[in-house]
Amino acid sequence: MAKANENYLKLPGSYLFSTIGKKVKEYQEANPDAKIIRLGIGDVTQPIAPAIISAMHSAVDEMAVKETFKGYAPDLGYEFLRNVIAEEDYKSRGCDISADEIFVSDGAKSDCANIQEIFSTDNKIAVCDPVYPVYVDSNVMAGRTGTYDKNTETWSDVIYMPCTEENGFAPQLPSVTPDLIYLCFPNNPTGSAIKKSELQKWVDYANKVGAIILYDAAYEAYISEDDVPHSIFECDGARGCAIEFRSFSKNAGFTGVRLGFTVIPKDLKAGDTPLHPLWARRHGTKYNGAPYIVQKAGEAVYSRQGKKQLKEQVAYYMNNAKVIYEGLKDAGYSVSGGVNAPYIWLKAPNNMTSWDFFDFLLDKAHVVGTPGSGFGPSGEHFFRLTAFGTYENTLEAIERIRKL
Amino acid sequence: MAKANENYLKLPGSYLFSTIGKKVKEYQEANPDAKIIRLGIGDVTQPIAPAIISAMHSAVDEMAVKETFKGYAPDLGYEFLRNVIAEEDYKSRGCDISADEIFVSDGAKSDCANIQEIFSTDNKIAVCDPVYPVYVDSNVMAGRTGTYDKNTETWSDVIYMPCTEENGFAPQLPSVTPDLIYLCFPNNPTGSAIKKSELQKWVDYANKVGAIILYDAAYEAYISEDDVPHSIFECDGARGCAIEFRSFSKNAGFTGVRLGFTVIPKDLKAGDTPLHPLWARRHGTKYNGAPYIVQKAGEAVYSRQGKKQLKEQVAYYMNNAKVIYEGLKDAGYSVSGGVNAPYIWLKAPNNMTSWDFFDFLLDKAHVVGTPGSGFGPSGEHFFRLTAFGTYENTLEAIERIRKL
Repeated sequence: MAKANENYLKLPGSYLFSTIGKKVKEYQEANPDAKIIRLGIGDVTQPIAPAIISAMHSAVDEMAVKETFKGYAPDLGYEFLRNVIAEEDYKSRGCDISADEIFVSDGAKSDCANIQEIFSTDNKIAVCDPVYPVYVDSNVMAGRTGTYDKNTETWSDVIYMPCTEENGFAPQLPSVTPDLIYLCFPNNPTGSAIKKSELQKWVDYANKVGAIILYDAAYEAYISEDDVPHSIFECDGARGCAIEFRSFSKNAGFTGVRLGFTVIPKDLKAGDTPLHPLWARRHGTKYNGAPYIVQKAGEAVYSRQGKKQLKEQVAYYMNNAKVIYEGLKDAGYSVSGGVNAPYIWLKAPNNMTSWDFFDFLLDKAHVVGTPGSGFGPSGEHFFRLTAFGTYENTLEAIERIRKL
Repeated sequence: MAKANENYLKLPGSYLFSTIGKKVKEYQEANPDAKIIRLGIGDVTQPIAPAIISAMHSAVDEMAVKETFKGYAPDLGYEFLRNVIAEEDYKSRGCDISADEIFVSDGAKSDCANIQEIFSTDNKIAVCDPVYPVYVDSNVMAGRTGTYDKNTETWSDVIYMPCTEENGFAPQLPSVTPDLIYLCFPNNPTGSAIKKSELQKWVDYANKVGAIILYDAAYEAYISEDDVPHSIFECDGARGCAIEFRSFSKNAGFTGVRLGFTVIPKDLKAGDTPLHPLWARRHGTKYNGAPYIVQKAGEAVYSRQGKKQLKEQVAYYMNNAKVIYEGLKDAGYSVSGGVNAPYIWLKAPNNMTSWDFFDFLLDKAHVVGTPGSGFGPSGEHFFRLTAFGTYENTLEAIERIRKL
């Protein structure tokens, strides 16, 4: 008789952002007049840049004519896109990454969730706490996390690296040795960044203990400070211990267009096993490539016009970040993030729990944020706001919060 | 220390179509003047229909303007698409399937490969032999298939259901009871179809033994005979035992556009566990939806103009199927398929192996097909040709083969 994967049944509740979506929908239905402003889920609001729109129209036209029609894409992505990524995101920053080490996909979320699959189920993972839920949830589904403790909201076989006010939201090297280390900088949800010299310590540590760092750099376009690395491959020795995930969602507004990529150096190994062929095999067997139209859109991100337009878009959102950061600080909130990341991390007032503050904010200000506790136990009493709203909505949301 | 997933290392060779791709590339490089005709991989050649092109241009324009820009899609797909699928593919055929039982994705390949994940790793799978490699390979990666025997080219824990000349390429109910049964009709690679009364026997069997049928209906648009079911949900009791996969790749030429969907009835259970919430959780955690532009393209498939244009496209390919079938039959080959499917299944002449015939055809006729043995041991000595080439190339390929 067919049996379900019991690991799925261990997952407490539904995916965080699905829960928030449902709560907001219910509130809106009960309060149809409430003008809700969403600064919760990290979804963008600015339209796709003109250079990219133009590239997509051209690609659609190519699909309309037999001579230029494109069927299945190459397994790992079109060369025109992989070449420009290697050049612009890596070689130009002095990173030794070549086009055939880049795997184009439909987004960093899928890749971050699927990457654990090429590792042994008895590998032990380490995650920051709080953390983007996908890392842990995908490992729960694979049976890699042990048992869940409802009281502490932690898994018995996961190594948690607390990121707290005390350590400036920067994780310390773990005391128990992990096999796989998930790091995300600039960080979601805390908005904190890490200096190159700090990241180098993680690379050295991973090489020493034989761990692999799974490095989520989805927010690199928001880095404004010079000594913050855009890629882990800026660090010496990273080719021997790191896999990097990149997204077009936040730097180019592709949350509804869907494009990302993963970098696996050809010489990267887990024990004696090279990982590049394993991920290539996964791509070949379980995936059929990102749409041609979308890969052409990705190429346009790196065009002269595309880069110019996207620089302005990032600046627009970072201005929102400033509005949130300064507005809340001015109102007496304890805030961080927002300098190298589009996320502001704030402490709920009066020792409220994260979810209490979520309900309070939704009910009193009609503003949606994300409860910090949804990202892990050390996120309790914290709250995430995103800079991805419109400027007008962001201003109004902060005005409303200031008036509470 | 990080360890690789050892199940991946059990996989013999690379993904079938990657291997073919490499072989053809090498041959072309060594023989730059050879005018190679590809009737191997099931990739389409006709451009996207005008109604769909127009819908995509409109969607691109929507993404260019703040007021109509779309970010993250709903977890399970846009309602406009799920509603039209429920209506046109199911309700219109008397199948009791509702929009919220439809999960929109980037293609049937991903879904067919990922579906095994929501089942226990000790579930036993049954597959047709020969079979689309993704079903078995994805289960190998999950550790569900036991050990590989190089001599028989079979896995110790997989139940094979031979589809041979003797049984008209229709599988018999297995003698060992499986937990999960992969069925694909119209069939890839043999091109065979199954009557509704025959499929009903499988549904009754699965309900009796508590197995789940994973039904791949990617080629349903090619059905030309009346008593062949387009969906397993045309059978009584299928809601209690079946999951269905559908693709836009072959009926609408979306191999490079990427869209598909999976149907999981809300009351379908594995033991006591409903499967719909598990797949919903997987979608929510490991996937971020198909692009808005692509979902709008999917909607246009069901428009009046779209349906008319695609009917012509399917007829174009089925005329190719006729050209291949009759040409080869006339030349003395033993052929089947091609009536309810875009695949022709032929026996290699002179007792050649499938790969020998592949090399022979590539070298002597510059025609690429797919070796039957790549789909399983019972495919040995057989060969698949697809009807997805252009009419002109198909004619020429058959002429070349006839002259051998």
